[in-house]
This record gives sequence, C-alpha cells and structure tokens, in this order.
Amino acid sequence: MKKLINDVSSILTESLDGFAAAHAGIVTLGPERKYVRRAKLKTGKVALVSGGGSGHEPLHIGFVGHGMLDAACPGQVFTSPTPDQIIAAAGATDSGAGVLFIVKNYEGDRMNFAIAREMGGRETEIVVIDDDVAVENSLRTTGRRGVAGTMVVTKVVGAAAELGMNLKGLRALGERVNRATRSMGVALTSCTVPAKGRPTFAIGDDEMEVGVGIHGEAGRQRMKLKTADEIAGELITSITNDLDSKGEVLLLVNGFGATPAMELYLMFNSAKAQLARHGITVHRALVGNFVTSLDMAGCSLTVTLLDRELEGLWDAAVHTPALRWGM
Amino acid sequence: MKKLINDVSSILTESLDGFAAAHAGIVTLGPERKYVRRAKLKTGKVALVSGGGSGHEPLHIGFVGHGMLDAACPGQVFTSPTPDQIIAAAGATDSGAGVLFIVKNYEGDRMNFAIAREMGGRETEIVVIDDDVAVENSLRTTGRRGVAGTMVVTKVVGAAAELGMNLKGLRALGERVNRATRSMGVALTSCTVPAKGRPTFAIGDDEMEVGVGIHGEAGRQRMKLKTADEIAGELITSITNDLDSKGEVLLLVNGFGATPAMELYLMFNSAKAQLARHGITVHRALVGNFVTSLDMAGCSLTVTLLDRELEGLWDAAVHTPALRWGM
Repeated sequence: MKKLINDVSSILTESLDGFAAAHAGIVTLGPERKYVRRAKLKTGKVALVSGGGSGHEPLHIGFVGHGMLDAACPGQVFTSPTPDQIIAAAGATDSGAGVLFIVKNYEGDRMNFAIAREMGGRETEIVVIDDDVAVENSLRTTGRRGVAGTMVVTKVVGAAAELGMNLKGLRALGERVNRATRSMGVALTSCTVPAKGRPTFAIGDDEMEVGVGIHGEAGRQRMKLKTADEIAGELITSITNDLDSKGEVLLLVNGFGATPAMELYLMFNSAKAQLARHGITVHRALVGNFVTSLDMAGCSLTVTLLDRELEGLWDAAVHTPALRWGM
Repeated sequence: MKKLINDVSSILTESLDGFAAAHAGIVTLGPERKYVRRAKLKTGKVALVSGGGSGHEPLHIGFVGHGMLDAACPGQVFTSPTPDQIIAAAGATDSGAGVLFIVKNYEGDRMNFAIAREMGGRETEIVVIDDDVAVENSLRTTGRRGVAGTMVVTKVVGAAAELGMNLKGLRALGERVNRATRSMGVALTSCTVPAKGRPTFAIGDDEMEVGVGIHGEAGRQRMKLKTADEIAGELITSITNDLDSKGEVLLLVNGFGATPAMELYLMFNSAKAQLARHGITVHRALVGNFVTSLDMAGCSLTVTLLDRELEGLWDAAVHTPALRWGM
C-alpha cells in the first residue's frame, strides 16, 4: 500500500486538521473532530447536516459552507459516523428552524441518522439519496445506493435553505431532486482502504467493473475494457431507461479519485453525445472529483432532470471548499 | 494501459471538445483547436497567453478566464504547443496593449514561444517559470523546471492585468512572483503517456521518487517510502533552504492526479507544521489537483513568499474552470 500518511490510525484526524486549516475562512472543526461546520452560521435558517464514511472527499466536508451544508460528520474510512457525532452536529447548527439530514442510502448511515433523530430531541427531517441505478440491493444497502447525486441534492436543497425555505419544504424538495437524479459508475481499478492495506477487489489489467459502488462494491457486470463511447453509451442508456421524462438536464461527470481530468472531459464529451441520441440536452455541466472512492480509477455519470426552479437553485451562489461560484 | 478513451490519436481533441462544452460560459475553443480562449475578452487589457504539453490539467486551459489567462495553447500530451498555435492565440487575444507569454522552463516550450515572438509581429514579453528546486538541469531543461508555481504566477499576474497593469509591469511582476516561489514534488507511482501505453518509469512497491518532475522525469533520489511528516520535512527543508527570506507564505499542496484528497490534506497538515519549525507562517492555502502528471500518484509542495501586494492579487476575484472565487 502506497499512501502519503504517517500512521493508519491517525489518517482521518490529521487529514481533518489539514482540511480545517486550509479552509479556515469557511469551516471550523467541532470538538473531538465530531463534525465540520460553517465558520459563520446563519440564524433562522434550517440547518442542513450530512455525513458518511470518509474516503469520498470532497463529499461531505468539502460541501460545508454558504449555499450547501451547515455541518458534515466524517466517519472513519467507509464507515458511518456515529449517532453521537450527528447529535453534536445538529446541536451545533440548529438555530430553531429545525435540522434536515441528508443521508446516502446505506444501512449504517440510515441507522445512525435514525438513532440521532430519536435521541437528539429536536425537530428533524431526513432525505435519503438513492440515485445509483446499477443495482437494486447490495452488500451495504436495501434498495439502491446513494452516490454522486448526493452532491446535486445537497447543492439544490442548500440553495433553497439559504433562501429561507422551511424544514418540510426542504425535505420535499430534496426528495424531488433525488427522484429527478440518476447515476451509474464504472471502475478501472480498485481502491485500497488504508486499514486493510490491500485492494478491495481484484480486477484484470484489461477489465472494468460496470455499475461499481463508491466503496468498491460489485456492480452489474465485470467485462473487458471498452471504449469511452461504448462505456458512456451503456451508462447513459441505463440512466435514461430509468428516468420518467426527457428534456434539459444537468450532467455531472464525477471522477472516483485517480482518473486524470483529460479522461473525465473526454467522458463528458461522449456522455453529452449519448444523451443527445436520447433527445436529452445538457444545460448545466460539472466535471471533476466530487464523490470519490479513495484512489479508485474510473468515473460515474449523474443526470438530473432540470426545471426552472431546480436550475435557479443550482445556479445560486455557493461558497464551500469544493464548490464555489456566484460570490 | 487502462484509460477512459476511444482512440489514442483523438484523446486531446475529444477532451478539448468536452472541456469547451462543459465550460461554455467561460471559454471558447479556437479554430482547429489551436487554443482555448476566454469567451468574453476585455479590450485594453494586456493579453495573457500560456500553454504547454497536455496531461497537466487543469493547467493551463483550466486557468483561462477572468483574473487569469486570456488564452492557453494545449500541445499534445507532454509536448510543447507549436509556434503556429501560439501565434494564433496571441492574435486572437491582443487588443493593442500587447501580449505576455507565461512559459514553463522546458526547452521545447521556450523555443516555440520564442519563435512565436519573433514571427508573430506584435509587442510581446515573456515570463519564464522555474520554481522546482529539485534539480538544476534535467532531461528537458537547462536550469530549473517550471512546475506548480506556474499556477501561482498566473493567478497573481492575471489579477494585475485585470487591474490595468501594463506589459512591462506585468513581466516584472511575473518575474518577482517566480523568484518568491519554490516547489518540490514526490511521486509514488509513474504516469502512463497514452501514446506510449506503458509507465514512464519503473518504481518499486515500497519506493518513492523524491524531486520528481511533472512528466515523470527523474528527481533527486529514489528511496524507500517514508512517512508523510518525513516527506514533508524533506521537501520543505529543500524549499526553505532556497528561499531568501522568511515570513508569511502561500502554501499550495498540489496533487499529481491519482492521490486522494484525504492524503493531500494530511500532507498540508504536515507541511504547515514543518514550515512553522522554520519560522514560516501559512497565510494563504490551496489544496487540490492543479498541475498534474496524468495518473501519477504523489504531490508537490509550493511555497510563495507573500507581501501585501501579492496577497491582494492572490485574493482578487477569479473566474476560470479550475479556480473560482470572489465573483
């Protein structure tokens, strides 16, 4: 295992300290590093709290700031944050308008956020993200997995929260964005979880895993590596087959961590052409590493059906470590 | 070789098409894809033109936009852009105030930008970046190599150009920022140039290349992998030994392409502590993939000595595909 680390046991704490120092103007680290929260909270606003296993950076901590999250709870690598962390984050951000939890659909995350809701003694709602069309159930999930679409939901709901939308409205909006969003990914290599020290799965030099999960979970099919156009065709067909309608979309090409920008932009080019074949036009675009799987090579495509409201909320000003525009 | 591509011969053109489509509001692609230029030029401003081999994205094309470059010329992978490209880019952006070329110190780049100056028939100046302290001469250079510091120079000079500084002033400023900037990197793996199809260099499972260049050029020393603190100590000592003075700095931790954000933030934490040992305080920070080497794992550290002028120019609004703040 080749990693820039000191000790496997302190990777998360040292990385969080570096993150908080590098973005001191935007975020602050909570006591015992239980959460990352906005440096300046906005009173009267519904608090948006998310979290999940670490190793997917910038998700979630990189999306803390104006226009997105109020706090994010980083679990150990690929491990859910504890209810204790979530309760602390909610307590540190709730200014009386309630707390919305944005949670990826994994058993551990759902359980711990549910416990935090029960034990936290405050007004909370929850939005569960399950945008991955690859598989219906998996090792870590009942139902579909939550993947890169989580970032899109967080951005849109975050913008609405900033504008003063109430807790129930935000939950409904989050569910609506989730329903309008589909993702699917492909891996060319495995990731290596530091504590394990070896690749999560074995894959041949000429193979790819189609429909891979963001922890290296098995996807739909192991097959010989195909061209970018063929891969984009397969992912986009799976995605569009599952969408209720066509029209204008946001297309997110998300790198899993080890894929060069050149390849991600090439995939964007392929995916855009594939969408056009299905009568779908790309109106908003994002390309980069946003929801990663440590050092995995590969990428996912996410498509969100837009309407005027969602487009406006997507365009709204955002100021976080990983996403910044309009201010 | 595992890459998300269609055909080795069309990687660059397809990737540029994707890039231009994804960032259509900010950039536009020149005829025959000779250059990427700002969608909206600002008349009366000195034009800033840069370029170099592709495979280092987001450098340079990702830095085209308000507050940075007016145009960037992408060469083939790790290959200088042609004089023809550079002349076309200068012609497409010069609004009468002259053109400043920002060039990394590699033989091919220097030669082709020099030819473009001679043959272009317009008022030009050139700033050559040579921030890499690792080696004095190398395979591709006489003198030091230009690496991640190029991005810092481009940001600062770009901000001054936006404020109306003239051509000679910008050249002097660029040279000043270059002199205040030092970098050094470490590779854990090689990169693979698509046209070659195999890793540029061989490296053991327990080895690292200290002082590596951004094309996988040999550095100072091949050695057993050390801890993040030890690596940061070695790089920061080399950097600070070469700096004339101490004080407040910008610290850039730059990923080479395949290194997870967790590790880059951990390295930031280590490097900041090492700088403190040398009496140097980090006043501005940037962590991410900015000057990459395709799929190489590893990172570089860049330190720029700040004064009030440079700090203000660093903070000034920027709106490019890869760097965006203040607007």
